[in-house]
Amino acid sequence: MGECIFCKIVNGEIPAAKVYEDDLVTAFLDIAPINFGHVLVIPKEHHQSVSTVPENVAGRMLKVASRIGIVLKRRDEYDAYNLHLADGTAAGQVVMHAHMHVVPRGVEDNFRWNWRQLTYPDGKAAELAKELAEKITVALSNTEE
Amino acid sequence: MGECIFCKIVNGEIPAAKVYEDDLVTAFLDIAPINFGHVLVIPKEHHQSVSTVPENVAGRMLKVASRIGIVLKRRDEYDAYNLHLADGTAAGQVVMHAHMHVVPRGVEDNFRWNWRQLTYPDGKAAELAKELAEKITVALSNTEE
Repeated sequence: MGECIFCKIVNGEIPAAKVYEDDLVTAFLDIAPINFGHVLVIPKEHHQSVSTVPENVAGRMLKVASRIGIVLKRRDEYDAYNLHLADGTAAGQVVMHAHMHVVPRGVEDNFRWNWRQLTYPDGKAAELAKELAEKITVALSNTEE
Repeated sequence: MGECIFCKIVNGEIPAAKVYEDDLVTAFLDIAPINFGHVLVIPKEHHQSVSTVPENVAGRMLKVASRIGIVLKRRDEYDAYNLHLADGTAAGQVVMHAHMHVVPRGVEDNFRWNWRQLTYPDGKAAELAKELAEKITVALSNTEE
């Protein structure tokens, strides 16, 4: 993809602080890190959405991301890590080449989502969850690869 | 693992609204969803940390999570999805069986991290990033599997 900045990083056309590279994936420091050491892991092949990344490449992405997370966690300033991926603008995806964030975390850094925890109506939880789960299951079976 | 609630879900010992299951992974609705349709994808085998999940299982996890994300995104109320994983208490992991969140997102739901974007000192960005990247690269090469 001619204009994709992550493809240009893969191809060495623009610089990046790479931390890892193999036949399938490349990993480099985020230029605006949440915590220092924040890394992006990307497939070398251009995919806008992670949903079109082949399973073996997806496995490499997740494995490399977690190995980097462990290395970061071992540094003095960190205790854990998050992996995070946005597929689509409404989810926060900005660069349209699939990428997994590895975010090192310290116990006191106080990062969090402004997330809520919804509840199902009283006495209806099991029934409504089952109904929704069945719809998802059916939709999934219609997208078998 | 006798007391792990996610192992009990895998084994059918406690109920869950399952949306998908195969030889390697199980996926079910989160009981306290951020948005309705919020799913957890887990390896059937017990791993506290995703870092010890074999690469083929990791690939299945990420592939199934993204397929579920696409299905959710196609529902009327959603436009995109996030994948999220916490490895360690400081990252927000509560259940100590590795799990990937699939969170369907609508353009107006307004969820976000309270994230910051750090910058490197003026004129030192490339140098400091290179130094940090080299440390991570060395640490990674010392953990080759």
